[in-house]
Amino acid sequence: MTREELERKAERPAKLAESWHPFYKGKIEIIPKCKIESMQDFSVWYSPGVARSCTIIREDLDKGSTEALYTHTNKWNTVAVLSDGSRVLGLGDIGPEASIPVMEGKGMLFKYLGGVDAFPLVVDAHDPEDIIKLVKWVQPAFGGINLEDISHPKCFTILDHLRRDKEITIPVWHDDQQGTAAISLAAFYNALKLVNKKLDEVKLVVLGSGAAGIGIGRLLVAAGLKIENMIMVDSRGILEPSREDADILRSRFPEKWYFAAHSNGEGVSGGLNEAVRGADAIIATSKSQPGIISHDHISAMSDDPIVFALANPYPEIWPWDAKEAGVAVIATGRSDFPNQVNNSLVFPALFRGVLDVHAYTITDGMAIAAAKEIAKVAEEKGLSPDYIVPSMQESEVFPREAVAVAEEAMRTGIARIKKTRDELFEHATSIIQRTQNMTKLLMKEGIIPRPPVEDID
Amino acid sequence: MTREELERKAERPAKLAESWHPFYKGKIEIIPKCKIESMQDFSVWYSPGVARSCTIIREDLDKGSTEALYTHTNKWNTVAVLSDGSRVLGLGDIGPEASIPVMEGKGMLFKYLGGVDAFPLVVDAHDPEDIIKLVKWVQPAFGGINLEDISHPKCFTILDHLRRDKEITIPVWHDDQQGTAAISLAAFYNALKLVNKKLDEVKLVVLGSGAAGIGIGRLLVAAGLKIENMIMVDSRGILEPSREDADILRSRFPEKWYFAAHSNGEGVSGGLNEAVRGADAIIATSKSQPGIISHDHISAMSDDPIVFALANPYPEIWPWDAKEAGVAVIATGRSDFPNQVNNSLVFPALFRGVLDVHAYTITDGMAIAAAKEIAKVAEEKGLSPDYIVPSMQESEVFPREAVAVAEEAMRTGIARIKKTRDELFEHATSIIQRTQNMTKLLMKEGIIPRPPVEDID
Repeated sequence: MTREELERKAERPAKLAESWHPFYKGKIEIIPKCKIESMQDFSVWYSPGVARSCTIIREDLDKGSTEALYTHTNKWNTVAVLSDGSRVLGLGDIGPEASIPVMEGKGMLFKYLGGVDAFPLVVDAHDPEDIIKLVKWVQPAFGGINLEDISHPKCFTILDHLRRDKEITIPVWHDDQQGTAAISLAAFYNALKLVNKKLDEVKLVVLGSGAAGIGIGRLLVAAGLKIENMIMVDSRGILEPSREDADILRSRFPEKWYFAAHSNGEGVSGGLNEAVRGADAIIATSKSQPGIISHDHISAMSDDPIVFALANPYPEIWPWDAKEAGVAVIATGRSDFPNQVNNSLVFPALFRGVLDVHAYTITDGMAIAAAKEIAKVAEEKGLSPDYIVPSMQESEVFPREAVAVAEEAMRTGIARIKKTRDELFEHATSIIQRTQNMTKLLMKEGIIPRPPVEDID
Repeated sequence: MTREELERKAERPAKLAESWHPFYKGKIEIIPKCKIESMQDFSVWYSPGVARSCTIIREDLDKGSTEALYTHTNKWNTVAVLSDGSRVLGLGDIGPEASIPVMEGKGMLFKYLGGVDAFPLVVDAHDPEDIIKLVKWVQPAFGGINLEDISHPKCFTILDHLRRDKEITIPVWHDDQQGTAAISLAAFYNALKLVNKKLDEVKLVVLGSGAAGIGIGRLLVAAGLKIENMIMVDSRGILEPSREDADILRSRFPEKWYFAAHSNGEGVSGGLNEAVRGADAIIATSKSQPGIISHDHISAMSDDPIVFALANPYPEIWPWDAKEAGVAVIATGRSDFPNQVNNSLVFPALFRGVLDVHAYTITDGMAIAAAKEIAKVAEEKGLSPDYIVPSMQESEVFPREAVAVAEEAMRTGIARIKKTRDELFEHATSIIQRTQNMTKLLMKEGIIPRPPVEDID
């Protein structure tokens, strides 16, 4: 396939998006989920009866318990997809309003794949301190916060602060960092199995040090990769302490500086050409431009090289070129190639598990548990160079992942409540199935209509 | 009926609320509203196709137009029910978390009666400046803001600021002020018709000067009642400039001070006893305590007195006592007595009209238009002392009110877009009917289950 053919192919979803969005005027809606048989029921759901639920919650909170809050309201299942629109897809800083289609889409995926009620909260707050304050202000309404498409480096400041601030009592996740990292780790686990290498022995080049690159670097180290065996490369070359812009890194990009100071144990200088020599793997989240990773780069790597070229929509190297250059495994971010490294396999089910045990936070351990379970689903079916990670169609992955995350939360004292493995599995399965059944039913009955068929090709 | 009998009767909705809330674990949910026939559709609704919608919106905004924003996303139909939980029902300051059941209930009413997607945004921001800042930050996500159960006097500061701040480009409404005022005005229009008196001639006592009292005072004056013919009474007596606490009123309660300075043209001093002499009507939103308005108060009024005793759950005078004392019309806030003055007749349909023309704000004129149309629905059926205002069951009121509000917005240049009367009516009717059909269908198919039948009496 040439780039032109791919571009023509990519026109189809774009054209459908242009036509379908105005047909539906938005992608999610908020509906009653409890019985309304007559207006009389409103005396239970609203004034005067509802005052009883308020009182029960208040008295319970006064005793230091959130149990009534999580059983009398929908807080337990409600997540904010929070974005200031400062770095949306490949579009850059398009602002909060123009980013709503992405956040609504994420809300749809949250519900359809995870049974989670996710509200697209696009905000006109842009300073890290403002976004942190905003999250504190709105946290009573939510059981969790999914930060999305916030530019770096502020996304690091915001996430790191919110994860350790004692005033934040609900889990906060930044999908561009942590979701991408978790699904990359899942795929990486299986790629390593195929080439018979170990995580704590491999040499890895992380190309790109935006939200995704830093997130991948952090999580892979948390999972056991030795930081001295990692080399991180940004647009100016290898991150290392003697770089010309070291002072700028130290003061303004502390997340990059951390890797400059601690990774690259052999002290390699230069750029990607130097970094890849003898490396076992490259994970790239850099520029959507095939050719960034070349045949020569791959030739310079060790035996059985692994390449994840995750830029979207065009990977840093075409899969066929990577194979020709001798990779053992190539993965991309695209759904039309094998081995799609796709966040949607992580956030809906991970939050399902997090919410189901009322977890306080989301630890790296919980993200690693998600990655391991995702990897296991593929491994059980039989790994191959073209199958290291499940697709969204393999729906068994979602409840299994939710259970793994919830169990890790319980094991490590992050969960507010305990459930058995069976309870977790049954609940995750049924709540996800319920949305899919509902969508099917609403379409069948015409309440969700079909868009007119158009000749868009 | 004795108070004891009423209290026993009131136990039923409270007990059902206690049992049903945990059964459903919340009252609203967020679901996809567009077709999902296979996971392939996600390439349209999410990456990569969705980028096209983002780009279209961004380019349109850059030209100064919000049209694409309102057609490619659900912003056009999304409202925040925003509360800090500082004055919830009769419960006082119970905080944001414990107020979620009320806000979810309001969300349910918004959708079921108005077809509006309303998200319960309870917040841990309490200073007026903080709440104002928060509204500015979150406004990109919403087509309107419904402030709810925020204590006074800060609720006045917040609403007044947000209504005139040029940075706020979406309508903001405080239901406890404006919704109560609009439905009171609707009922008052019809009560006046029954006694053959005119709004610009009657003498009115407003008892209680919280959010509702001030809101009623303001809107009735905007509708034509002469402010000098109004006397406002709070717990310390008649609001007038020579009151002992005049300095406090002036500095800390400017909204009360406005009425102290401008109402009460005859300069009456004292309390309710003095205020009611010769008055044509009392509208009370004071304390939930029958007897606050007495037989003697009513005897002191002019011919054919009108009394709205709106405190909940117990009115300031029982209807039977009011009738015995000779009222021409008595209205309360209770659904089990005739003439319920019920906000739910206003906010869902008013917002329907506001949203359908992308209105910038909600003027007093729009609230008055809503009141007039509500009054008209009852009048067309034939008014009587026990029927001055429709009930929620009279569902024709909702689309008619929406149309009236939208037309007033278009007439006065508040609307961003124009629609015909028929378009407005057809849209309001079908979007409201759609939710009710959906709820019925989901119940029939067991996706919304029924709670177990319990013996709660």
